[in-house]
Amino acid sequence: MLDKVDLTKTVDEASFDESLTGYKQRMSVLQRTLRDQKTPTIILIEGWNASGITMSTQAIIQSLDPRGFTLHAIDKPTDEEKSRPFLWRFWTRTPPRGRIALFARSWYSRAISEEMQRSAWKKSLEGKIHSINTFERQLTDDGTVIIKIFLHIGREEQKSRLEERERNPLTAWLVTPSIWHVHNQYDTSKPVIDDLLGKTNTDFAPWTVIEATDRKYAILKVYSTLVKALEKRVGGGKDGHSKRGKDKEQVRPRKNPVKRSSAPENACTKEDCQQQLNTLQIEMLELHYLLFKRKIPLVIMYEGWDAAGKGGNITRIARYMNPLGYDVIPIAAPDQSEKEHHYLWRFIKNYPRAGHIAIYDRSWYGRVLVERVEGFCSAPEWQRAYLEINEMEEDYVMSSGGGIVKFWLEISKEEQLKRFQQRASDPSKIHKITEEDWRNREKWDQYDEAIDEMLARTSTSIAPWTVVESDDKWYARVKALTTVIDCARTLL
Amino acid sequence: MLDKVDLTKTVDEASFDESLTGYKQRMSVLQRTLRDQKTPTIILIEGWNASGITMSTQAIIQSLDPRGFTLHAIDKPTDEEKSRPFLWRFWTRTPPRGRIALFARSWYSRAISEEMQRSAWKKSLEGKIHSINTFERQLTDDGTVIIKIFLHIGREEQKSRLEERERNPLTAWLVTPSIWHVHNQYDTSKPVIDDLLGKTNTDFAPWTVIEATDRKYAILKVYSTLVKALEKRVGGGKDGHSKRGKDKEQVRPRKNPVKRSSAPENACTKEDCQQQLNTLQIEMLELHYLLFKRKIPLVIMYEGWDAAGKGGNITRIARYMNPLGYDVIPIAAPDQSEKEHHYLWRFIKNYPRAGHIAIYDRSWYGRVLVERVEGFCSAPEWQRAYLEINEMEEDYVMSSGGGIVKFWLEISKEEQLKRFQQRASDPSKIHKITEEDWRNREKWDQYDEAIDEMLARTSTSIAPWTVVESDDKWYARVKALTTVIDCARTLL
Repeated sequence: MLDKVDLTKTVDEASFDESLTGYKQRMSVLQRTLRDQKTPTIILIEGWNASGITMSTQAIIQSLDPRGFTLHAIDKPTDEEKSRPFLWRFWTRTPPRGRIALFARSWYSRAISEEMQRSAWKKSLEGKIHSINTFERQLTDDGTVIIKIFLHIGREEQKSRLEERERNPLTAWLVTPSIWHVHNQYDTSKPVIDDLLGKTNTDFAPWTVIEATDRKYAILKVYSTLVKALEKRVGGGKDGHSKRGKDKEQVRPRKNPVKRSSAPENACTKEDCQQQLNTLQIEMLELHYLLFKRKIPLVIMYEGWDAAGKGGNITRIARYMNPLGYDVIPIAAPDQSEKEHHYLWRFIKNYPRAGHIAIYDRSWYGRVLVERVEGFCSAPEWQRAYLEINEMEEDYVMSSGGGIVKFWLEISKEEQLKRFQQRASDPSKIHKITEEDWRNREKWDQYDEAIDEMLARTSTSIAPWTVVESDDKWYARVKALTTVIDCARTLL
Repeated sequence: MLDKVDLTKTVDEASFDESLTGYKQRMSVLQRTLRDQKTPTIILIEGWNASGITMSTQAIIQSLDPRGFTLHAIDKPTDEEKSRPFLWRFWTRTPPRGRIALFARSWYSRAISEEMQRSAWKKSLEGKIHSINTFERQLTDDGTVIIKIFLHIGREEQKSRLEERERNPLTAWLVTPSIWHVHNQYDTSKPVIDDLLGKTNTDFAPWTVIEATDRKYAILKVYSTLVKALEKRVGGGKDGHSKRGKDKEQVRPRKNPVKRSSAPENACTKEDCQQQLNTLQIEMLELHYLLFKRKIPLVIMYEGWDAAGKGGNITRIARYMNPLGYDVIPIAAPDQSEKEHHYLWRFIKNYPRAGHIAIYDRSWYGRVLVERVEGFCSAPEWQRAYLEINEMEEDYVMSSGGGIVKFWLEISKEEQLKRFQQRASDPSKIHKITEEDWRNREKWDQYDEAIDEMLARTSTSIAPWTVVESDDKWYARVKALTTVIDCARTLL
């Protein structure tokens, strides 16, 4: 893409001022329309060092109401960010509905600079490209507009700009030795960048490469790109949605369908189970230390019928873990700010740090369970979710080096009734049962169907489901802990 | 406090199990009651290395519903945390109403370990003690329960526990050279810790020092401390509230009352002002670089009548700043999660990083303006707020090394009417005027009174108010930018 750019284009002073004023006014109106239409918008400005990223960002900001946008200047990741998968810090920065997130540099700069520092970068960059395309597609499928701009200048132009900065005492400190080092790699990095831009130039999030040698020309071009793309969108065009199919590469579900059963084949007595649990808990303690030392994260996720025993099971698993090394993440209905983001946002935000364990008490599968059954999302939304979830889990495992254990706690309809009645008649347990539980029970068959489809479509080789037969809660605890231990072993 | 502790107390196995079961049940009930009463609770466990902080934390967690508490294990601060004032990472971790925040180590461990590494620690520790007492008082005034436990063991006991850990391959890696270094400082640090405990042993957040040589005894004592303190609270006791007065040392307001005026004494023409602004903006650009390089943060805060021109003023101030070095923080009505915290929480969360500028568009003064006038908080709450705000600003300046500029944008009632009417009749501005603006205008006199009291009681020598006469908006922009520049100069 870079070689097609004509770097000699210029613009004269008079027409610059006039055009700029016009664009600013249109941009200002667009921001309000996007807000009213509740469209989340990502504008990202990438480019060579000294190509004018800051200048362009500043120019864009001048037409925006500061109440409605957030600027994210992307530099090296913090310690906290380093301990999470590559895209985590960008997922957590995606804008809520109606807001603009303006990225001065982005996941692209990070991908390039991380990769340029390694010898065998090529293979790993391919993985990142796959992750990035998936990330951007999931966001645009959810209604986000993504506008990507790359500011292009030639090697000689970059050199003279860096020298100019060095001569100015206000900016000299910005030109570090590593900036010169990167400049010296211009010719070797150009094909890498070109390749990256080409492979992420998708229908849903296309690139615009802008000739940035003439600064005024660049600013006008940035504005016209933004204004045209946004006006098209605001006018009702949702281009690219139809063509999106070809980018979807389904993560293959496993061949063997997952069987659901609520009764264990070999039950054990409560005493036997407790003894086994004690042994397993000590083993878990040791494995937890090893995961921590080797900085391997683990996600443990519980789904299951109401009263299937998720809480008690989690407590038993966690009992002898070091409390400093795990978090239990209870998932309830999303709050306002969560509703204003992509539905995966709140789960990704809580990914465990390297070496930590996150236990999700209910999860992202709510999308294809309660949200599907109760109609909290549309049919296309939950139908799309199987793929999105498979991609999310795959990306998590591949980019964090950690594992995911997914439990479905199955009980029979009779056993659930028995437990509801026990809870209702025991003053110390009555707080555990609500009207909503009874209402959910009335929709048993609808949930049944949703669960079957979920297990069939999201049990992948990389993140398989484990059905835990939970009519016998002691058996269930032993099986869950055994499964976690098996998974932890394969990670070490 | 440490020397009064009897370290030989023990408990036998049989009575341990029985008592523990009883305490756990009571704790479990208490958690639900605290949730229903919407009480935020802080439990913090401090103590010597190897005194059993992890063990006690684990014991407490076993009786808690994971949906209702968060564990904060406090270790060294991250880069992000280091670039903020000392208490920032703790303010951001305060629990919302109805939740328990369990701290395994806390601001106390951080204060001690930061101070033990310096030569002249004593003076600085005094400052931290003042900050900590203010922090805890503000939280308890807002309804938070704070329970502080210190686990005490002797020097020899600590030594033998560290040796025991070194012999166990699972825990040997925890015993680093620096742990031994700290152990060797036991005798010198003991009086420091004793002093710290004594000076932070307040009516509103008292310490319980627990003899932790016998582990079972320690766990029971931790539980009984928690259960008794919480049962007292839940039963309606709000001890300490009445005695709190003596800890309040009012930050002195300035002697000269702040005069409000909407018309500048020396107006300037629009052209003159614009020329001045151009010069000032270049100066500001330079100062912004210097603040950034020296890692000095700056808070710029705007309050003012509706239509006084806050937005336009902010845009002019920020125009030539590097957008990577400042944030505009628009303040609207608090969302659900913000409502569930102390009202200062959302402002402190957005404190600028070292070297950055945060521009607040409206602020914490909402407490004594809109919340007072509209009755969104009680009279005792807004009356208390003057002191709380003075303390917050003082603590910010003292602990960050930065500055605060506070603008009140004053316009006359007639000028406001004129601007409202202009907005209402101009299609490109009509979005700026709402029903609420008209309703607020009807309460002009009530706001007038609230503003007078605010300016009189919160213009301190450390964070004075600047009234900006804003009937002439060009003059106002020049004055605001000049004030920011003056403040920045004094910081450098």
